[in-house]
Amino acid sequence: MNKKFDPIDIAPPFNNIYSHGVEVPPNSRTLWIAGQTGDLPDGTTPDSFEDQAEQAMKSFVSVLAGAGMTVSDVVKINVYLTSHADLEKFRPIRSRHLDGHRPAMTLAVVSTLAEPKWKIEVEGVAAKQ
Amino acid sequence: MNKKFDPIDIAPPFNNIYSHGVEVPPNSRTLWIAGQTGDLPDGTTPDSFEDQAEQAMKSFVSVLAGAGMTVSDVVKINVYLTSHADLEKFRPIRSRHLDGHRPAMTLAVVSTLAEPKWKIEVEGVAAKQ
Amino acid sequence: MNKKFDPIDIAPPFNNIYSHGVEVPPNSRTLWIAGQTGDLPDGTTPDSFEDQAEQAMKSFVSVLAGAGMTVSDVVKINVYLTSHADLEKFRPIRSRHLDGHRPAMTLAVVSTLAEPKWKIEVEGVAAKQ
Repeated sequence: MNKKFDPIDIAPPFNNIYSHGVEVPPNSRTLWIAGQTGDLPDGTTPDSFEDQAEQAMKSFVSVLAGAGMTVSDVVKINVYLTSHADLEKFRPIRSRHLDGHRPAMTLAVVSTLAEPKWKIEVEGVAAKQ
Repeated sequence: MNKKFDPIDIAPPFNNIYSHGVEVPPNSRTLWIAGQTGDLPDGTTPDSFEDQAEQAMKSFVSVLAGAGMTVSDVVKINVYLTSHADLEKFRPIRSRHLDGHRPAMTLAVVSTLAEPKWKIEVEGVAAKQ
Repeated sequence: MNKKFDPIDIAPPFNNIYSHGVEVPPNSRTLWIAGQTGDLPDGTTPDSFEDQAEQAMKSFVSVLAGAGMTVSDVVKINVYLTSHADLEKFRPIRSRHLDGHRPAMTLAVVSTLAEPKWKIEVEGVAAKQ
């Protein structure tokens, strides 16, 4: 079992939706998930941030499923946005897909992603014993 | 053997040069590779993006070799550029060095790197059984 | 023991404070550390970069301690700043907390972090046998 914890001598995780530390025991298999974007299965990209974020999270979960894993196995998520104004729209989408699970997390707003139309990219790591 | 896969219910990896998921079995050794830049072995930094990218990829491969690994063992690459206009120039250089291997990948354009003259930084993780 | 190394055919690590490669043996436990910020234990955020950086590094060390680890077990650190001008101020703070240990490292200056008041975020990975 991956062990999630938050030291009591530092501030709680911001917004209380992730864990400060996630410890993975030896003898785990590890899944590396490439940056998932808003590209739809047909290769097109929706315009709206919400639609892109929804697809990025769905794709993230699909990659997990391909390794026989679920969001409960995710140990780290890194989110890249291209506009800070999109963060508020992302939060409920992220919460719904994470379904109460709390990986370690980092989020940064960057200048642009590989395709200028992309507004979000979500990468991560999962581990299962 | 690290297992690379792409779920069929999501869009294929962009440009078809990486994998959506890479699964590493238990009992692997893991290599963490610091962000590699265009600094030449003599410590100077070439001006052109192409020369920097070439050196960054060569240095990345050198770190792999130091652990007895090759690009076939790479499970994740993160690329940071400082200008989106350099991406087109990076693609053939990356392809040549990756030699058909497809780690998981993320790319972001950021404001600047530790040295303002640096135009690219390439970090990654490799694993071998 | 995690094995740190620097290939002799590439430039030494910039500023000589990190390692190009860190190899983790099989049968290690792995700690994923979420992006640590300048938020103080009481939830407030100091204004100055120095105070934020000091707290981010203290929090990073606290998460390590929560898993029975220390900075000697850190294999990778990623630092995100929001202003390149802060990098000079960060260096002595980082050096003091790392205490001579040399994980692999990447640093990028990004547009902004999840909270616009945050000037630094420090995430990382540690491993122990």
